Amino acid sequence: MTHIPQSEQSMRSEQSMHGMRHSMQSCIQACMECHQVCLQTAMNHCLETGGKHVEPEHFRLMMCCAEICQTSANFMLSNSTFHNRLCGVCAEVCDACAQDCKNIGSMDECVEACMNCAESCRQMAGSSMQH
Amino acid sequence: MTHIPQSEQSMRSEQSMHGMRHSMQSCIQACMECHQVCLQTAMNHCLETGGKHVEPEHFRLMMCCAEICQTSANFMLSNSTFHNRLCGVCAEVCDACAQDCKNIGSMDECVEACMNCAESCRQMAGSSMQH
Amino acid sequence: MTHIPQSEQSMRSEQSMHGMRHSMQSCIQACMECHQVCLQTAMNHCLETGGKHVEPEHFRLMMCCAEICQTSANFMLSNSTFHNRLCGVCAEVCDACAQDCKNIGSMDECVEACMNCAESCRQMAGSSMQH
Amino acid sequence: MTHIPQSEQSMRSEQSMHGMRHSMQSCIQACMECHQVCLQTAMNHCLETGGKHVEPEHFRLMMCCAEICQTSANFMLSNSTFHNRLCGVCAEVCDACAQDCKNIGSMDECVEACMNCAESCRQMAGSSMQH
Repeated sequence: MTHIPQSEQSMRSEQSMHGMRHSMQSCIQACMECHQVCLQTAMNHCLETGGKHVEPEHFRLMMCCAEICQTSANFMLSNSTFHNRLCGVCAEVCDACAQDCKNIGSMDECVEACMNCAESCRQMAGSSMQH
Repeated sequence: MTHIPQSEQSMRSEQSMHGMRHSMQSCIQACMECHQVCLQTAMNHCLETGGKHVEPEHFRLMMCCAEICQTSANFMLSNSTFHNRLCGVCAEVCDACAQDCKNIGSMDECVEACMNCAESCRQMAGSSMQH
Repeated sequence: MTHIPQSEQSMRSEQSMHGMRHSMQSCIQACMECHQVCLQTAMNHCLETGGKHVEPEHFRLMMCCAEICQTSANFMLSNSTFHNRLCGVCAEVCDACAQDCKNIGSMDECVEACMNCAESCRQMAGSSMQH
Repeated sequence: MTHIPQSEQSMRSEQSMHGMRHSMQSCIQACMECHQVCLQTAMNHCLETGGKHVEPEHFRLMMCCAEICQTSANFMLSNSTFHNRLCGVCAEVCDACAQDCKNIGSMDECVEACMNCAESCRQMAGSSMQH
């Protein structure tokens, strides 16, 4: 039986069937989930509830969070070398959106999706991001 | 105990927590899955394999299938009244992409995602689509 | 001097430097202009004005008009064989958005961009579209 | 006649009809032009020429450059407070794409659009970006 060094083992277990690291696959899912929840919430709950939910700053944040999550997912799906740079900005937008949704209230699903995506994108951005 | 007519019962069971019909939620998932698989396959498997996989007509079909699936999902998430019109075109693109991937071979996951999305979009397009 | 038949001459004059027909290049510009005006108007004028401008049906129409114009432009830029099918749906969305903006008022630039894009997309959709 | 201080004059001249700064309007145009040129070149010239033009790293860069330019333009059109953060990453991607297209050759229009967009995005990103 051949000995496989620990580091190589964990690297192997990090590879999915299509050669994509599990951490990236997981970040893609978090981005797609956050895109879906933000867009659906903004275009339904927010527009139908009105008031604070359609204040310019809040609504822009929801829509831009949805869009940067979509683009970040596409960069990872395309295996772009710049995915970590984009994930860094995506994490910042998601953090801001989670906070804004928490302040306004009644958007728990959105808060959770944003926080989850921010955490996953921050890991993907890795050491290149400090804030 | 109040009697609920069958038709109303099935309508109720068609409503999800957020008021979205299950059939639409299911079509959104099919579109997002197809977008993900087509984009990932084109930008990794096709580019790395070359040959028939990067012939202009095939590659364009893969990329445009990914994009129209994304836009169709966004129309449904946004509850646009035009979602069924867009789903009609999306079904045609997915059918063509499934057939093209089958002809070239070694893209079973893509064929399956495209066929599944085409079927779901065709139902969403409903009676407005004949082809 | 060789005689060039009229039909061939006009076909040649329809070709731009990059082999793209002028009519398609013109439709791409109309779609990109409509995308830009609708998105900018919705996310600034509509959100800041409020009232009728953020009623769900109107706001969704503005945003979905912006998105389908973007996707139609991308299909033409990518030389997809399905561009005419998508342009057919884009024309319908632009017509509806132009009418809705006219009804609400104070969005002349948006009305004009939508009407111009609808006309250009309808020509691109060609004989495949009747409505 | 009222005296208008110099600083206020230049601020006014920086405002367009819709209240958007000219520098931002100019960056939106640069992003939309770069998106258009990169997508059109990749999906036509590169796919039809083959060879180096469809090598995975080059083709991914072209497509991701097109996508981040589109998203950056959308963030500015939406007046998102995060536009400068995204423009910073966009400038990096455009710089890399310009260099790659220059190395491969026969893509002068793409090199120019990328360099122009990189410069404009770098100014938009402002002092928050050093590289």
